[in-house]
Amino acid sequence: MQHPLPGHILYGGDYNPEQWSEDVWLEDMRLMKLANVNMVSINIFSWALLEPKPGHYHFEQLDRIMDLLHEHGIAADLATATASPPTWMSRLYPSMLPVTREGIRMSHGSRQHYCPNSPDFRRKSAELVQLLAERYAKHPALKMWHLNNEYGCHTAQCYCDNCAEAFRVWLQERYNSLEAVNATWGTNFWSQRYYEWEDILPPRITPAQNNPGQTLDYWRFMNDSLLGCYRIEEDILRAVTPNVPLTTNLMVAFKPVDVYDWAKQMDIVSFDMYPAPGTLPSWNALQHDLMRSAKEGQPHLVMEQSPSQVNWQPQNPHKRPGQMRLHSLQGVAHGADGILFFQWRQSKAGAEMFHSAVVTHESNEHNRIFQQAAQVGADLAHLSPVVTGASTQADVAILLDWENWWAVEYLPGPSDRLRYMEMIGRYYHAFHQQNVGIDIVKPESDLSKYRVVVAPLLHMLRSGVPQNLENFVDKGGTLLTTFFSGIVDENDHVGLDGYPAQLRKLLGIHVEEFDPLTPAMTNTLEIKEGSLAGSYPCELWGELIHTEGAHTIGVFGSDYYAQQPALTVNAFGAGRAYYLATQSTQELLDKLAQDLCQQANVTAVLPIDGDIEVARRITSTGESVYFLLNHTQQEQTVTLPQGNFTSILDEKAVSGQLTIPAIDVIVLKTR
Amino acid sequence: MQHPLPGHILYGGDYNPEQWSEDVWLEDMRLMKLANVNMVSINIFSWALLEPKPGHYHFEQLDRIMDLLHEHGIAADLATATASPPTWMSRLYPSMLPVTREGIRMSHGSRQHYCPNSPDFRRKSAELVQLLAERYAKHPALKMWHLNNEYGCHTAQCYCDNCAEAFRVWLQERYNSLEAVNATWGTNFWSQRYYEWEDILPPRITPAQNNPGQTLDYWRFMNDSLLGCYRIEEDILRAVTPNVPLTTNLMVAFKPVDVYDWAKQMDIVSFDMYPAPGTLPSWNALQHDLMRSAKEGQPHLVMEQSPSQVNWQPQNPHKRPGQMRLHSLQGVAHGADGILFFQWRQSKAGAEMFHSAVVTHESNEHNRIFQQAAQVGADLAHLSPVVTGASTQADVAILLDWENWWAVEYLPGPSDRLRYMEMIGRYYHAFHQQNVGIDIVKPESDLSKYRVVVAPLLHMLRSGVPQNLENFVDKGGTLLTTFFSGIVDENDHVGLDGYPAQLRKLLGIHVEEFDPLTPAMTNTLEIKEGSLAGSYPCELWGELIHTEGAHTIGVFGSDYYAQQPALTVNAFGAGRAYYLATQSTQELLDKLAQDLCQQANVTAVLPIDGDIEVARRITSTGESVYFLLNHTQQEQTVTLPQGNFTSILDEKAVSGQLTIPAIDVIVLKTR
Amino acid sequence: MQHPLPGHILYGGDYNPEQWSEDVWLEDMRLMKLANVNMVSINIFSWALLEPKPGHYHFEQLDRIMDLLHEHGIAADLATATASPPTWMSRLYPSMLPVTREGIRMSHGSRQHYCPNSPDFRRKSAELVQLLAERYAKHPALKMWHLNNEYGCHTAQCYCDNCAEAFRVWLQERYNSLEAVNATWGTNFWSQRYYEWEDILPPRITPAQNNPGQTLDYWRFMNDSLLGCYRIEEDILRAVTPNVPLTTNLMVAFKPVDVYDWAKQMDIVSFDMYPAPGTLPSWNALQHDLMRSAKEGQPHLVMEQSPSQVNWQPQNPHKRPGQMRLHSLQGVAHGADGILFFQWRQSKAGAEMFHSAVVTHESNEHNRIFQQAAQVGADLAHLSPVVTGASTQADVAILLDWENWWAVEYLPGPSDRLRYMEMIGRYYHAFHQQNVGIDIVKPESDLSKYRVVVAPLLHMLRSGVPQNLENFVDKGGTLLTTFFSGIVDENDHVGLDGYPAQLRKLLGIHVEEFDPLTPAMTNTLEIKEGSLAGSYPCELWGELIHTEGAHTIGVFGSDYYAQQPALTVNAFGAGRAYYLATQSTQELLDKLAQDLCQQANVTAVLPIDGDIEVARRITSTGESVYFLLNHTQQEQTVTLPQGNFTSILDEKAVSGQLTIPAIDVIVLKTR
Repeated sequence: MQHPLPGHILYGGDYNPEQWSEDVWLEDMRLMKLANVNMVSINIFSWALLEPKPGHYHFEQLDRIMDLLHEHGIAADLATATASPPTWMSRLYPSMLPVTREGIRMSHGSRQHYCPNSPDFRRKSAELVQLLAERYAKHPALKMWHLNNEYGCHTAQCYCDNCAEAFRVWLQERYNSLEAVNATWGTNFWSQRYYEWEDILPPRITPAQNNPGQTLDYWRFMNDSLLGCYRIEEDILRAVTPNVPLTTNLMVAFKPVDVYDWAKQMDIVSFDMYPAPGTLPSWNALQHDLMRSAKEGQPHLVMEQSPSQVNWQPQNPHKRPGQMRLHSLQGVAHGADGILFFQWRQSKAGAEMFHSAVVTHESNEHNRIFQQAAQVGADLAHLSPVVTGASTQADVAILLDWENWWAVEYLPGPSDRLRYMEMIGRYYHAFHQQNVGIDIVKPESDLSKYRVVVAPLLHMLRSGVPQNLENFVDKGGTLLTTFFSGIVDENDHVGLDGYPAQLRKLLGIHVEEFDPLTPAMTNTLEIKEGSLAGSYPCELWGELIHTEGAHTIGVFGSDYYAQQPALTVNAFGAGRAYYLATQSTQELLDKLAQDLCQQANVTAVLPIDGDIEVARRITSTGESVYFLLNHTQQEQTVTLPQGNFTSILDEKAVSGQLTIPAIDVIVLKTR
Repeated sequence: MQHPLPGHILYGGDYNPEQWSEDVWLEDMRLMKLANVNMVSINIFSWALLEPKPGHYHFEQLDRIMDLLHEHGIAADLATATASPPTWMSRLYPSMLPVTREGIRMSHGSRQHYCPNSPDFRRKSAELVQLLAERYAKHPALKMWHLNNEYGCHTAQCYCDNCAEAFRVWLQERYNSLEAVNATWGTNFWSQRYYEWEDILPPRITPAQNNPGQTLDYWRFMNDSLLGCYRIEEDILRAVTPNVPLTTNLMVAFKPVDVYDWAKQMDIVSFDMYPAPGTLPSWNALQHDLMRSAKEGQPHLVMEQSPSQVNWQPQNPHKRPGQMRLHSLQGVAHGADGILFFQWRQSKAGAEMFHSAVVTHESNEHNRIFQQAAQVGADLAHLSPVVTGASTQADVAILLDWENWWAVEYLPGPSDRLRYMEMIGRYYHAFHQQNVGIDIVKPESDLSKYRVVVAPLLHMLRSGVPQNLENFVDKGGTLLTTFFSGIVDENDHVGLDGYPAQLRKLLGIHVEEFDPLTPAMTNTLEIKEGSLAGSYPCELWGELIHTEGAHTIGVFGSDYYAQQPALTVNAFGAGRAYYLATQSTQELLDKLAQDLCQQANVTAVLPIDGDIEVARRITSTGESVYFLLNHTQQEQTVTLPQGNFTSILDEKAVSGQLTIPAIDVIVLKTR
Repeated sequence: MQHPLPGHILYGGDYNPEQWSEDVWLEDMRLMKLANVNMVSINIFSWALLEPKPGHYHFEQLDRIMDLLHEHGIAADLATATASPPTWMSRLYPSMLPVTREGIRMSHGSRQHYCPNSPDFRRKSAELVQLLAERYAKHPALKMWHLNNEYGCHTAQCYCDNCAEAFRVWLQERYNSLEAVNATWGTNFWSQRYYEWEDILPPRITPAQNNPGQTLDYWRFMNDSLLGCYRIEEDILRAVTPNVPLTTNLMVAFKPVDVYDWAKQMDIVSFDMYPAPGTLPSWNALQHDLMRSAKEGQPHLVMEQSPSQVNWQPQNPHKRPGQMRLHSLQGVAHGADGILFFQWRQSKAGAEMFHSAVVTHESNEHNRIFQQAAQVGADLAHLSPVVTGASTQADVAILLDWENWWAVEYLPGPSDRLRYMEMIGRYYHAFHQQNVGIDIVKPESDLSKYRVVVAPLLHMLRSGVPQNLENFVDKGGTLLTTFFSGIVDENDHVGLDGYPAQLRKLLGIHVEEFDPLTPAMTNTLEIKEGSLAGSYPCELWGELIHTEGAHTIGVFGSDYYAQQPALTVNAFGAGRAYYLATQSTQELLDKLAQDLCQQANVTAVLPIDGDIEVARRITSTGESVYFLLNHTQQEQTVTLPQGNFTSILDEKAVSGQLTIPAIDVIVLKTR
């Protein structure tokens, strides 16, 4: 596998020249050079132009675009154009259109109007990919394939008859027998037993709630269905262009798409990053850490971000000056080797005409947005020789699991207030505050390289996971897990030996009852002594716990489990396992993270004080590059450790005290 | 008719052994004995197991369950299993599936996925019931039939073509002629006149609001359609097992199902009781009083309640310690002769796996939930010899009427803030605070046994009702009714001689205008003298009233009807008729209830002070049993009247001062 | 064209005698005379009665009604009865029923259940209109035709196949070629290009947002479709009864129906006026000014208003005493020559039985509502000889544009908080406070007669509009426009030479960025000097502006465009053009309106102080009639200018100080 542009941080964006006359294309080339662009994604929504009639293909325009890019030294991330079929396909193959849970069939007229299990869609898109692959296999501009686009966006679930049929096949492969499906789904309840495969349906609208096992399997199936579309394209491309790397743009931690499954099939992980106004810096960092971890630390790409405002939030303010640059460099700090935008030139019509672009409606370089983009281009050019391909290092792992996500948010359930990713974000934030390296990994991962493992809301224990956690702690690791963990197995069956099932021994506790709280109900976490001493407000959840070997650090302050354990630690082998039975404040989590890091001897990547995010990349020669990111509205002054540093972006020598302006970043390497 | 277990308060719950292997069944028997269980409901959702293929029945497993129960001395409340058809029925008879107002057909995959007017459903369910009746007619475990389950839950309305056809037949029976339908529905408005029966439809989705007469008749028709399903089963069972009592579990005061209609067809009224967290004790008492009154005072059953948390509220906290026991005994206090749970053993999979059960996921007796259930079992065993079959006595009646409910909440109407049952609850609460006996009866009932009759929001005056109320007051009764009463007749036609129509003479008032208030609009009720003197905030409603013989007790404080009547009383014959023209505070209602009781010589069932609910049952020998229920979080000390009492649950002698712990109950009889 | 009742302000309402027996009709005549009624609208929803079977017509009842009216000297506004087809039409022509965006077909059972593009509906309604026209052409009661009713109410959009086909025809007429449609809609984005006409659909439900060009054209098309229905009836009626004036009741400024298009086809503009409780008086005035302006100053009619409460608001309080009269006379003050009610006699059944009527459920004249209506009738009789046909005069014009409305509120867009009509209302209110005459006109109108033109949110600049505005200012006019103006052309394409495109020169500014604010984001408008000096809170919107010749009056107080222009003025030719780049307080707008009026020498119609609305009508002899309207809850005392006046309603001489009671009106003419 070959890096698309060795030695270069990729920089560019979605380029849709089809919307413009060819004279505009040359102006685009001029402006791209001005902004240090080195790669663009093209052809994403071009199917209708490429195949105006069934089986009649016209690649001439795309040829010209590819040639133009090559002439100007810009690499092509060439999309397979399968994300939105031409309108005539809806007419020829009406069953290609997706169907809602209520049985309503969608129309074309926006985008991504296809059922992922449509045989017609799959056949026609494969045909297109084959032709594209063959035509451009040798084209010198081709540096990466971009498969489809944002799989699952808009149509992550479909309930049509094609899906029903495919779901049955999927279930047959997973379970072999109908009896096994019945057993897993618990169909003896509510008279749901299936006697014929053909009676199994997607979880369409029903009088009461759908079966949870069926619902969980449908999440799995739809993830696999989308991935199935990817794999059809992947097979074709690998056969024709075995040396061109493949990617598709994932969509942050998006519930329908299991990033870990997908990363396996991708050569380079890329994703689209659209934080809402006011999103915490740690939330953005989490997404980068996830994408990097999904491919075991290999650098990832930001395939899309907006230069400034978007058009699909309820209200769409601009990114404030400096913000886009700060986000871009935060991405690089966390392992990204590419920063691309949606889109290069702002549309004058169509659904996204008010989404910002590098080239605004003013069509020139004399404005804030273009100039900031050009500065980021220049910054990345500075960083490229040092940073490209550099790795990261993490002592802390946070466990994230898509099946757990699907299972724990099934409704109606114990509480509609459980938000798995929000919970992950809270714990991530606490450790991120410590400026330590963090990976986001699956519960089955090799944990031996970490010192601290955090498993928020680990509701589902798949086979092997309890042992993996026990091994980790046994060998000296520190584990932190939380309420409502250890409840179900991978079949979504509750363990019958007392919660938290196979974690009971590791945690040294027995949870007799879990008690979801209404918004009107609160409690407190009372800690008598130690660095955490204090009284912390709690909400969302309480539990009635009996220790079975664990030490009680804190207790509940009120209600029928007052003075009973709320925070425990259990010595297990050479390590320790913590359990927090409620949702307390971020303050408590931050202190707890600090404590755990200290105990586990996990230190910041660079020991400085102040409200500064610090992240590190490590070059192939073992040199550390430090990113000091000031997300605040005030300048921040920090004291660097002993030693002399070089500020890479302005190539100045730096030591001792260092001031980082508001919404700005300084990148240091040891001189 | 024979009581299922003479001399025993029924105790047990839904038992679904099909979800477990047979070795678990024996453990269930052991635990049931431990908990004093004497009856379980079985077979509720077993149709799919009983009839795995069309016309192929397998009763062997049910045979074993019935035998096992009998062996262990536990009675069977045997369900007819018709509440959820097997999945293959959806395939064979797709028109059996219910259809929403928008025309969307539901799927199987949850429960109760049948249209009550489906000929296929009716034929197949009757076939099953016939076979069940014949097979178990002589089985010694069979003590009660449980028809279907929670009729109307999830599918209380269906809009399919079967329903359309059945609706026409129903209308033909009710009205005889199309002309009469047109006249009743007022179809000369909006060009709605029908010239052919086939043009009449259920109130499906339309551009503007549906006709109110059609809507009211559709509520009536759907109640009758569900009852029609019941009656098909009833006819079969009465023919085969004339001596086995019939019940079905109603669902508190549930708008689609007219409890009074249904009670007539049932031998024992039973219902499911799932108060949300924070529900007022008086609301629970109201439901019991309704169920008991619906069968003219005959003891009713709680067919389902949850041992602790449920799984279908937005959040599902546990019932706090003592709460389930207090609710159970409150039920007995108000006339229940049975307390059963959903369900006996908690599922490990399926839609209700997080709904609590007597036997929790821990599968043993060593936990709070099981132990509390066992204590209730013991308590009921203590009460059984004294209380079983005991009656109640009431001086106060609150009028409740389903047709009124359907009519008064039709939207768009004068106000979308009218909630009929909430209004009933407010007035019930006021009288419940007085610890007097209360019945909940229809407006046509014999009222001669009551001293006070309360008719909140009696919007619809069916034929005979005004006379019934006049007779009651004329003979010395005290009537209280409220705003927006006396507006329409049973055809939903407004009276044209001035509101409140035929109540005008009885109340001595003429309502010129009713004035629904927005949430921003308020008023006050000003009472100058007497025990009610004061100024009370009002909301929701105002009226412009002229007295025609009535005495004005209170007036409005502001707006264009300031100083005009708001609360009036009219002497009529030997009695008095009160009218309250607005919604005031609970404080005013409580004082008003106190006043009315005093005037009408209605006294508490036991004269004690303090924040204690007291209810009484009267044994066949005329002895009173008093239930003193402390719903507060503090212990309460009360002074008993002269005399010596026995506390039944602990068999202690009691007199003078008595302390009732928080969330606890003491049951007394005269020694 | 002939005025329906020359010399008379029309007074009456919807009359539905079909709901009542004929003896009630005579009582109606008596009461109508008592209330000074001179015209009623009949036959509105009578189709089902007129054509009980396909092709079988019965006009006898309508004959009797027409004769009765004539006998009693009451004019008939005869409706064509096409607003709601008979129920049998749904059966014979199911494709006549409208279909939602989701593909759900509506049913009959309410009203207006027809697709405006249904060939069956159009054919059958034309047949009915032809017969009606011929039958009543010579009837002496016939004074006006009332076509259909509230076009677009309930079914303003339909997405059925008839509509799809008609949409294609409409597009062919507008664009001639598919290529032009593609270019306009920007279909090269998202692979939306059409190669066959048959692939074009209405904007039905799709996975993501619909194309904005398609959506805009669909608004245009549906407006034209409804108008097409009108024009079918118009053609028939003009052929048969060329001298009878035509109207239909519009529905205030209702988004689906472009009042300016419709007014062209109507002889008399009429509309339905149902202000919600608490609506500002200026909002009502705006509607009247719009309706009058739409027909170039010719008097309009209030075809429907409610005597008191309605039944379709969430809650429906009565109009407080005096309010209906004040609203009625405000209408006359702003140009109305007719005040009619929905409806004459309150229904006793059906969907609007709780909507107030002149004759209430009490069926007599002895109540507040009837008496107030009778007083209004008497007032209008007093005003008739003076006011009928009188004109108005306006120095200020506010630009209103339906296409702009449709375009600017397309979602997702820059902000979901943009409400075009609300914005119009804010600016109207500011000028209305000055008691100046205001017209509401299209951007293409002849502006030469105005001194001040206000163009809030003039997002879309159709061809010719920039020139029209430039001409106006060049010749000395004062223009005020606001943020997000000048963004797109009539094809919804963004201009590419810097916002605000062709307004850039006129306004002397360049808008680099527009910045929609979230509710949490605020700013201030800082004005250092002059009559507007102060600091004003802002919300909703900010902009980054560079002046290009304009003078900066005020700047933003914070954020990245702090101290940059927020309010500017540009001298252009002999006039001035103002631009306000944010949404500030009503206080600022009021002061700005005052300033602009002063600068442009626009004066109040009558110079008096105090919280009184003053409006003027000018008789054919040039005499001014002043309406002094007190909308407050307090009496107001004002000082009249020099001179002697007559108060028309009570025929008293008036001069000097004058007191107007709360919720009351005085009408003056110079003696």
